[in-house]
Amino acid sequence: MSSKTDSAKTSVYKPRPISGFLEWLPEVRLVELRWMDDIRAAFESYGFCSIETPSVEEIEVLAAKGGDADKEIYGLRRLAAEPGEEEGGRLALHYDLTVPMARYVAQHFGDLVFPFKRYQMQRCWRGERPQEGRLREFYQCDIDVIDMDEVSLHFDAEIPEMTLDVLSRLGVGPVCLHINNRKILQGFYQGLGIEDIVGAIRIADKLDKIGHDGVIEGLTGELGLAQSVAKKCVELASIQTLDASFADEVRAFGIENEQLEAGLEELTFVMLELAHLPEGSVMADMSIARGFDYYTGTVYEGKLVDYPDFPTVCAGGRYDNLVGSYSRQKLPGVGISIGFSRIFSKLVKEGRIEIGAKCPTDVMVACLPGSSRTDLAVTSRKLRERGFKVEMYHEAKSLKAQMKYASRKGIPYVWFPANAEQPNHEIKDMITGEQAVADIETWKP
Amino acid sequence: MSSKTDSAKTSVYKPRPISGFLEWLPEVRLVELRWMDDIRAAFESYGFCSIETPSVEEIEVLAAKGGDADKEIYGLRRLAAEPGEEEGGRLALHYDLTVPMARYVAQHFGDLVFPFKRYQMQRCWRGERPQEGRLREFYQCDIDVIDMDEVSLHFDAEIPEMTLDVLSRLGVGPVCLHINNRKILQGFYQGLGIEDIVGAIRIADKLDKIGHDGVIEGLTGELGLAQSVAKKCVELASIQTLDASFADEVRAFGIENEQLEAGLEELTFVMLELAHLPEGSVMADMSIARGFDYYTGTVYEGKLVDYPDFPTVCAGGRYDNLVGSYSRQKLPGVGISIGFSRIFSKLVKEGRIEIGAKCPTDVMVACLPGSSRTDLAVTSRKLRERGFKVEMYHEAKSLKAQMKYASRKGIPYVWFPANAEQPNHEIKDMITGEQAVADIETWKP
Repeated sequence: MSSKTDSAKTSVYKPRPISGFLEWLPEVRLVELRWMDDIRAAFESYGFCSIETPSVEEIEVLAAKGGDADKEIYGLRRLAAEPGEEEGGRLALHYDLTVPMARYVAQHFGDLVFPFKRYQMQRCWRGERPQEGRLREFYQCDIDVIDMDEVSLHFDAEIPEMTLDVLSRLGVGPVCLHINNRKILQGFYQGLGIEDIVGAIRIADKLDKIGHDGVIEGLTGELGLAQSVAKKCVELASIQTLDASFADEVRAFGIENEQLEAGLEELTFVMLELAHLPEGSVMADMSIARGFDYYTGTVYEGKLVDYPDFPTVCAGGRYDNLVGSYSRQKLPGVGISIGFSRIFSKLVKEGRIEIGAKCPTDVMVACLPGSSRTDLAVTSRKLRERGFKVEMYHEAKSLKAQMKYASRKGIPYVWFPANAEQPNHEIKDMITGEQAVADIETWKP
Repeated sequence: MSSKTDSAKTSVYKPRPISGFLEWLPEVRLVELRWMDDIRAAFESYGFCSIETPSVEEIEVLAAKGGDADKEIYGLRRLAAEPGEEEGGRLALHYDLTVPMARYVAQHFGDLVFPFKRYQMQRCWRGERPQEGRLREFYQCDIDVIDMDEVSLHFDAEIPEMTLDVLSRLGVGPVCLHINNRKILQGFYQGLGIEDIVGAIRIADKLDKIGHDGVIEGLTGELGLAQSVAKKCVELASIQTLDASFADEVRAFGIENEQLEAGLEELTFVMLELAHLPEGSVMADMSIARGFDYYTGTVYEGKLVDYPDFPTVCAGGRYDNLVGSYSRQKLPGVGISIGFSRIFSKLVKEGRIEIGAKCPTDVMVACLPGSSRTDLAVTSRKLRERGFKVEMYHEAKSLKAQMKYASRKGIPYVWFPANAEQPNHEIKDMITGEQAVADIETWKP
């Protein structure tokens, strides 16, 4: 028996980080928590309610949205599954929060009040092959508004306003939210006589990756469009304005199409509603298409201005029938998804996150030889009741050891409790090094 | 094409709840969030820092702890994995927060300050067969203190004090934390000449399930102990005191054993340290053994007094070498795990959770015909800047429709902004029905 234990002790398993899964030290985690609090506070300040869905959905639900997403799904398997057992095999981790939200709304339809405005901050998983900078587990922070039959255009403006509010509270530096409307693209392409509109949008969406010439080549080569038509598509995609003047530029093409006009009016409304925001925070950008089929109107893509090569940090749009896959009721919506982990880990990497203490403690109560454990415990409880975060030092080690502990953890104040030898409480400011008598009932940092 | 779309629309996938995975409506989720905030505030008020680990560990890490746990592990598999691809197959969802914490401490050893006091609130997963009341996804809230070589006994008392503080802040009703010390059991059994001490502890641990006679039968039958010895084991397990008087009762057996004495002294220290708590919140209980091999001293089990048949709601203890599996450094610890989802879902089921509004909104700004969207937006922003949670109603529907929306969501106040026709702001209290002029700079609920 004992030899077995010994050999088990010797074979130490050395843990290592798992590629694509983030893990922070306590001092970074403290900042991450503050970010999450700030985001939640911002979302709630607009009256959005929190929902949380299970980490898993049935594979059938995840697959119902189609697209390439199923390639990235992590399915579950019970390690102890018996042969032929289906259980567990039906379940998979969600890869975004949009599909779970759509399923949630369909499932709880009768219990929700519409327009249903929800926020959701959860981890998502994508079973990608490990690759530099690719996260396989990440937090997303989503806001969506779902309504019955029709969603007010008001929300197409409120959603980006909230997003910019959130990002400015976090201090991530300047953000530009690029906004477009799929109806503009669809109507414009239709007006040009293009038949495969979805195909054309997919190619035009690659503008920032393959450039103007690449898009023209794709449109003429793959889709067989005339050079002059392809050129107009690229010219449309070049229109970017910080106000509502984009509409005149588009109308100057002289293309008449009902859908195009509807899109121009919607985007004009949104840009005017957002006119009060600092200049440069929103841009009407005709190059934004969003790959997903389900967007039908406004589309958004946000970028960190300081890191132009860094991918989109938030994205979303309006959809008419996303929830419809799970419900006969027509439940359109509009929403945006903020790539929390993508932004946070980027700013950590760039050294843009101010790292402070390793713990939330305000005050450490020192354990001096003259004090009884009761002195310490009563003092700690008293300070805690007054709302301070208080560590009671755990044993009567040397003062030097205790101060070193407080200093290494970044604790700002050390409290020396009154006792038989020392009738007054004293407090030491760990930054200035000053020590002074303190009243436990009234002391403030 | 269009017929394909139509048929896709017709085959609606009807979502259903997945057994063992909880999901709450917004009004319940609001309470759950408040609980989580309260728990976090309590943990931080003792200076514990937050950590969060990935949802997955390598299967090798999870299995290193041994026991039955591996039977319940959910492994991951990439749905798009290519034949023979190992990736994903090495990863599994964690089934508790103790193993990930031990791995975290070993991995980040050089970057942590000891004693390392951490809290962790995350979901865990157990791939159990679906069964009434069994959760397959659940939140646990863990606190642990890890130190190098030795952990101060101070923490054996602080951990249960924090736990009771947390549970009382949540208002879950009376809780009794049963405390024992494994050294008492081991020393007592050793003193009685029992050889298979681990086996005897495992049988004695079933006392509340199989009763006194069952335990005696197990000890005499399975282990071949004499009836008189088995009887003493059961008599020991019957000792329960609300103060430190248990020690005299145990010493009355006249068994002399060094380990027994050490256990009695440790448990006496803990009970005396907790003597200031309301009577009945802690109990020295010699029947508590905790099944896990890794506990070596103090052990805890908490019960809801109002629901004596309901399983343990928090549990933990002291371990000497848990982290040791991943590190050559000796890193003992003591901690407790609070079964958040178990407690919360029980109290929801019992109707003990007070459910209120369906959203966090304080004030809804109504959209009356006389007001411009700018009036509304400016009013909403102003109130938001003053710290209120504000929904701007999204369109000029009938007043009745707007009031119905506010009422169904449980929004306490509706604001009527000043406009050309109505020079004063007015506010309506949705509970009393009173409406009065309000100053936007000074109004308070």
